[in-house]
Amino acid sequence: PKMKLPGQEEFEVSSACKNVPTGELDSSPGSGPSPDGPLNTKRGDLGVSKDPLLFIQLNELLGWPQALEWRETGRWVLFEEKVEVGAGRWSVPHVPTLALSSLQKLHSLLAEGLVLLDCPAQSFLELVEQVTRVESLSPELRGQLQALLLQRPQHLIQPTGTRPCQGSAHPREASYNEEALLKEQRQNPLRQKLPPGAEAAAVLAGELGFLVQPLGAFVRLRDPVVLGPLMEVPLPSRFFCLLLGPSTVGKGYHEIGRAMAVLLSDSQFQWTVRRASNLHDLLAALDAFLEEVTVLPPGLWDPTTRIAPPKCLPSQHKRLFSQLREVKGPPAPPGALAEDRHGHWLRTPSPELQRTGRLFGGLLQDVRRKASWYPSDFLDALHPQCLSAVLCIYLATVTNAITFGGLLGEATSGAQGVLESFLGTAAAGATFCLMAGQPLTILSSTGPVLVFERLLFSFSRDYSLDYLPFRLWVGIWVATFCLALVATEASVLVRYFTRFTEEGFCALISLIFIYDAVGKMLSLTSAYPIQSPGSPAYGCFCQYPDPGGNESQWTRTEPKDRDDISSMVRKVLGDFSSVLAMLLGCGLDSFLGLATPKLTVPSEFKPTLPGRGWLVSPFGTNPWWLSVAAALPALLLSILIFMDQQITAVILNRAEYKLRKGAGFHLDLFCVALLMLLTSVLGLPWYVSATVISLAHMDSLRRERRTCALGEPCSFLGIREQRLTGLVVFILTGTSIFLAPVLKFIPMPVLYGIFLYMGVAAMSSTQFTKRVQLLLMPAKHQPDLLLLRHVSLSRVHLFTAIQLACLGLLWIIKSTPAAIIFPLTLLGLVGVRKALERVFSPQELLWLDELMPEKERSIPEKGLEPKYSLGGDSEHSELMYQPKAPEINISVN
Amino acid sequence: PKMKLPGQEEFEVSSACKNVPTGELDSSPGSGPSPDGPLNTKRGDLGVSKDPLLFIQLNELLGWPQALEWRETGRWVLFEEKVEVGAGRWSVPHVPTLALSSLQKLHSLLAEGLVLLDCPAQSFLELVEQVTRVESLSPELRGQLQALLLQRPQHLIQPTGTRPCQGSAHPREASYNEEALLKEQRQNPLRQKLPPGAEAAAVLAGELGFLVQPLGAFVRLRDPVVLGPLMEVPLPSRFFCLLLGPSTVGKGYHEIGRAMAVLLSDSQFQWTVRRASNLHDLLAALDAFLEEVTVLPPGLWDPTTRIAPPKCLPSQHKRLFSQLREVKGPPAPPGALAEDRHGHWLRTPSPELQRTGRLFGGLLQDVRRKASWYPSDFLDALHPQCLSAVLCIYLATVTNAITFGGLLGEATSGAQGVLESFLGTAAAGATFCLMAGQPLTILSSTGPVLVFERLLFSFSRDYSLDYLPFRLWVGIWVATFCLALVATEASVLVRYFTRFTEEGFCALISLIFIYDAVGKMLSLTSAYPIQSPGSPAYGCFCQYPDPGGNESQWTRTEPKDRDDISSMVRKVLGDFSSVLAMLLGCGLDSFLGLATPKLTVPSEFKPTLPGRGWLVSPFGTNPWWLSVAAALPALLLSILIFMDQQITAVILNRAEYKLRKGAGFHLDLFCVALLMLLTSVLGLPWYVSATVISLAHMDSLRRERRTCALGEPCSFLGIREQRLTGLVVFILTGTSIFLAPVLKFIPMPVLYGIFLYMGVAAMSSTQFTKRVQLLLMPAKHQPDLLLLRHVSLSRVHLFTAIQLACLGLLWIIKSTPAAIIFPLTLLGLVGVRKALERVFSPQELLWLDELMPEKERSIPEKGLEPKYSLGGDSEHSELMYQPKAPEINISVN
Repeated sequence: PKMKLPGQEEFEVSSACKNVPTGELDSSPGSGPSPDGPLNTKRGDLGVSKDPLLFIQLNELLGWPQALEWRETGRWVLFEEKVEVGAGRWSVPHVPTLALSSLQKLHSLLAEGLVLLDCPAQSFLELVEQVTRVESLSPELRGQLQALLLQRPQHLIQPTGTRPCQGSAHPREASYNEEALLKEQRQNPLRQKLPPGAEAAAVLAGELGFLVQPLGAFVRLRDPVVLGPLMEVPLPSRFFCLLLGPSTVGKGYHEIGRAMAVLLSDSQFQWTVRRASNLHDLLAALDAFLEEVTVLPPGLWDPTTRIAPPKCLPSQHKRLFSQLREVKGPPAPPGALAEDRHGHWLRTPSPELQRTGRLFGGLLQDVRRKASWYPSDFLDALHPQCLSAVLCIYLATVTNAITFGGLLGEATSGAQGVLESFLGTAAAGATFCLMAGQPLTILSSTGPVLVFERLLFSFSRDYSLDYLPFRLWVGIWVATFCLALVATEASVLVRYFTRFTEEGFCALISLIFIYDAVGKMLSLTSAYPIQSPGSPAYGCFCQYPDPGGNESQWTRTEPKDRDDISSMVRKVLGDFSSVLAMLLGCGLDSFLGLATPKLTVPSEFKPTLPGRGWLVSPFGTNPWWLSVAAALPALLLSILIFMDQQITAVILNRAEYKLRKGAGFHLDLFCVALLMLLTSVLGLPWYVSATVISLAHMDSLRRERRTCALGEPCSFLGIREQRLTGLVVFILTGTSIFLAPVLKFIPMPVLYGIFLYMGVAAMSSTQFTKRVQLLLMPAKHQPDLLLLRHVSLSRVHLFTAIQLACLGLLWIIKSTPAAIIFPLTLLGLVGVRKALERVFSPQELLWLDELMPEKERSIPEKGLEPKYSLGGDSEHSELMYQPKAPEINISVN
Repeated sequence: PKMKLPGQEEFEVSSACKNVPTGELDSSPGSGPSPDGPLNTKRGDLGVSKDPLLFIQLNELLGWPQALEWRETGRWVLFEEKVEVGAGRWSVPHVPTLALSSLQKLHSLLAEGLVLLDCPAQSFLELVEQVTRVESLSPELRGQLQALLLQRPQHLIQPTGTRPCQGSAHPREASYNEEALLKEQRQNPLRQKLPPGAEAAAVLAGELGFLVQPLGAFVRLRDPVVLGPLMEVPLPSRFFCLLLGPSTVGKGYHEIGRAMAVLLSDSQFQWTVRRASNLHDLLAALDAFLEEVTVLPPGLWDPTTRIAPPKCLPSQHKRLFSQLREVKGPPAPPGALAEDRHGHWLRTPSPELQRTGRLFGGLLQDVRRKASWYPSDFLDALHPQCLSAVLCIYLATVTNAITFGGLLGEATSGAQGVLESFLGTAAAGATFCLMAGQPLTILSSTGPVLVFERLLFSFSRDYSLDYLPFRLWVGIWVATFCLALVATEASVLVRYFTRFTEEGFCALISLIFIYDAVGKMLSLTSAYPIQSPGSPAYGCFCQYPDPGGNESQWTRTEPKDRDDISSMVRKVLGDFSSVLAMLLGCGLDSFLGLATPKLTVPSEFKPTLPGRGWLVSPFGTNPWWLSVAAALPALLLSILIFMDQQITAVILNRAEYKLRKGAGFHLDLFCVALLMLLTSVLGLPWYVSATVISLAHMDSLRRERRTCALGEPCSFLGIREQRLTGLVVFILTGTSIFLAPVLKFIPMPVLYGIFLYMGVAAMSSTQFTKRVQLLLMPAKHQPDLLLLRHVSLSRVHLFTAIQLACLGLLWIIKSTPAAIIFPLTLLGLVGVRKALERVFSPQELLWLDELMPEKERSIPEKGLEPKYSLGGDSEHSELMYQPKAPEINISVN
């Protein structure tokens, strides 16, 4: 056959090449590959990360024959940036595309050219001498070429200002000012983006009319050398590649030079070529690259289209694996697959969730594990990032305290209030940060608890009970039940909370939020009626400024929108947005002088309810037996607290956040139980973990690799796990109690607006909402969701319909007198999900939901493999490895 | 070298292949290529369009060794659709990506396999016999293979419902029901999408363990044959390709089969292979394909990523051209380039805009040209599409008539009104449709004219003039001046209206709209004050529902959003949206019973101004000399009318709309002049062409190729140019005068809202607005605009700053007592643009604006070529050919 398959390596070519100085061929570094084929070369791939980063620059020879000069036209680290000649600036980084023919031309240029591996040159001058020592060149030509190579190239230097200034002095006229050059190179903003230890590679390409045959040279320097003015940045160069030749048509040498640069930017090629011992290895690496390239058909793809850097790069690990399979034959052992799979899309069965079998065994384990991290929990906070995190989270916490305090005050006719909310938030939050298993958690009165407290209050009002003492006993019982749950290690059950449960819970609470907020607003029209113009008193129509306008800013704090954010400034503004929305609402209210109901705040530091002390009396006017009867609502509240707390904890401890210090489900619940007791005694609101605000907290503490130049997605290293930021936030919240006199200017409709927004935002973030939209969408207009690629539409609709039915049922229960038992029905969701295993195959559930613990183990044997191997097999399994949950379903805080 | 360059054709391989039945080799069709290389083969590319469309289907052999069966797994026309196995549906169409290795494997399979060109087989049975007549197969194996090939494959048939049903009966058990099969094939929705005369190609690939060596066969049938159950659709098949072989690892045959299918879907490969006379030609076509492919590096591109079909495909013409250059050496003659260029991005100096040099020469030319089309202007309207166009445009016209009528009534204290607006729109519009050069134009009172009329009215009020008689004389003079402009062929000057002028005009008018609307709304607060709650009468705060919410629907009528629309239903809804917004506003107003100012409409059919007849008296109470003095404002209004009319006409007659019947700039202006006279005499509003509504009209009359299946962008054929739709619209508008009694329920703030919306929409659609945003954006966040690739940022900013300064100056003039001369200053814009040629290079102006007529000619010689050839040359020039104005800068209607 005319074209050889890349698998059939034939190396007669390299032996035919006499230009390689044999003396230097074998002085390869110790880690050189054994000669038994490309497999070993590739197996070492795992060492890629140890090699220094390579910055590649393409200098082109332009202007033949009148005005020869070198000009930098492109640069690479991972993605390509080219010089926009007209605009005088660098292009945005993009995925480089090549013509196949230029790779093939490069192949023959290298094969017939000069290859110097571990060249001992110490300076650019020496290097130029080495490179031009080619038989085919006459001494005269050699001199000319050397002079040409030593010409100073033109770089596109962009200083910090917006106006780019190109190196103005023409190289041949300019006096060679070393000082100025070095200064210029050091000021290059690119330099700060490259990590210390980075090396450079220079590719010089172009058309040189006086050559009679193409001249290709590839040099790997033994010790990297700073090549003076050749490079844009003063990095030591490891590789040097020269690709010159006589005039050709079209963009020949430009494209060949790009091909070389793109090859050098490929991590596997780089790895091999750093260790190559001869031309043979070099060409084998090129062939290996070719074997893996993706090809786009010419009729459908315009090669000048610039492809934006993808959100996530193909993993080098997977690349290696697919090569192994290709070369070795049998597919990889299932163990490797399972490992990969676990890391990505199956809920990690973390060691914290293994049952010990002893009373309080889980709690003790949590305490022991967390104790070892305790000193570091304060030392790790010594980073400026933590300061800005405190500011962000403080604002969110205060807004939250005001909103929930105001609504709670209204729901309980002032038995709770803003003052209690501030005090409770500060006390409970600070305690939790000091004691809890997951100190990044921010405590807050959450929606479900607010709903329950409202039910409890109307119950006690209906039966003329003294609310706070009744509530105290409920709290005592809840604490007891929760302690029992800790003792029996009930938290291991969170493994049964799948997306189905999380989203069902979230959807229900969101609906309650929306319903309540709209209801409240409508009820205002009767209390503060709009009167028609005929009547003597004009009506007042008050419209809360649409909170939807802030939506984009609000959601910015979620990780999925991170790509859009780069400066901290915008982030802070985003976090301010809720505050801004409030201020706007208040301003409009006072500007128009509207008669709206305002937040009730006591004018001095005393409980909101007139006439009560800070300690709640244990009985008040209630009969003694009520303290026992309180166990019944407490049981329900315990379930609610458990569900709310643990669903949040599961989300916060997800594998994708790369937490080093682990979770503490038992310890967290223990803390919540203690705080339950404390807040009940003092008559403060009840607190559990709040999802959104805690996620924002974690987000503000992300550790990322600093140097992510040239379009590379910033790599996420983990979270600064520590206790100090939370502690400071809550101490600040505590001191904000003295804001109370200002707070009474906030109109209640503003708070309803924020509430409505929270409900809508939480609702729309769920996959459930997306699936409900699918119900109403013709197949043609449906987005290309991964879900839809793997589950038939009718099954997706069935699943959605069942979820909708569950939600409807829960809503009905909530709306009847049986409302108080609705926490119990939440548990029912887990049961329904279990029953769904009889309706849907594990494969379908994997895409629609997640797998429950037992099924997880049974899958790799039977369920997961596609029905037919179908060839497309690899794509199939590949999609499964993709992280399924970049979208975080926000439970309401 | 190991790998041969595709340019160096070596055909020893094909002669080594003995399997080709020589008797059939030479029976190629008459148009076979001459044997002197691939160039001739490709030159014939222009004939591609004559070949029938090819539908390609990939059937895979699955289930070796236990349960062999054929299953359709992919299909192609242009883009790829694959079967989503889990979901049981077709994927969305996407750009196919291939592995280079599978193309190379295909190459060797074909080279070593059986190639039958113009095989005379008449049925599938005969074909199977021919294909299996291979020496390497034993008779026993041959029988087995034949039986296997005749097995009925499983297709994924998706009937009209959502639930896909896969062919349920297992092929070996099923009784072969020909009737049912044919019915199924005919019901296939795909069939309706394929044009009549389409042919099919079947690719059969898979792993067959009992083969000892790979079996490749490629058959071109002399006469296309319907292959029975083999294909999903009952099309005659022209090509048949078999790719079987012993077990391999990975997705070998699946990928090779896909490679074959993708090759067949490539138009150039298809063209060559339809005319190929031997294996040599076939392999040459494959090499030609390989030479053109785009390669993506493996480390940066996940091959499983699905690429959505690009908005515009690379032109086959350009592909051919780049090949010619590659093969032949010298670049193409500049003439070809210029031709290509003109078609795309340079304003076509259309024959209508050549000065004849005779009085009324242009008008006569227009009349003569248009007369020849006149009968077809009515016959071409006989298409159901015109009916829906009438509905859309009628609604828009009525909304417009109400809005402008209402605002005009207010601006002139009832000298004009809604009744006049309806009457005038109907009369002027219908007349224009019958007489004008561009009958697709919809006339309307436009923003600039409204502004001028307001100025005129306040002037006449200040000097206690009788408005309508004064206005009559202004109209008479304007008509005279316009006739003079027609006589002197002034319309040829529109060539000097570049984007700079258009956008400056548009921005100014938009700003006036926005300023007025906001001002009106604020002034309402003093007329209908908001009173603070302390006062005895409560204030009424009326907020018009934010029209921004309808923005997305509004803009849907613009061509750029067309991709999102597919059914007519959505389009109609989109056109209804302004009506819906109005209804919503009116409903809210009446529901809340707000005391808002309402539209003034006379209760019977008589002029809005009490006591005037339908004819305006020529003098009224004005002194006689005023009829002469009216010439001064008339001069200014003439400039305004000329600018407004011609800018709109330039936009409507842009080359991208592919109008066949040409423009009629002189005739249009002539009609406007006549209508000016008519409306002034009757005291009706003045009319000129309205951009947005006319564009919507054209959009609703687009002719598109019907069969654009499988992701292919629908190809735009032109516009149904005719006079009937406009005529009917205006007749309907005329009869809507009887709506007048209903109209008086419309509150004025609703009209202000629509006005505000129009201003914001027009403002935000300009490139100017984008550039102003760039001023405020750090370079890092700037979008990858083509503009920014070619002009340095500081120059872009300078251009924007100059435009801003012009705008500021115009605004100041507008706001001073000198306001009445502001039409003159609009002309100044053209002068400023001319002066900019001293500041900016032609190349910069080409990207920032457009070129003025003289410069246009001078460019190809000096200005346009990039400073350096840079290799990247071809990309550079390519971007230039891209149509620069898919975005239409909307002038306000």
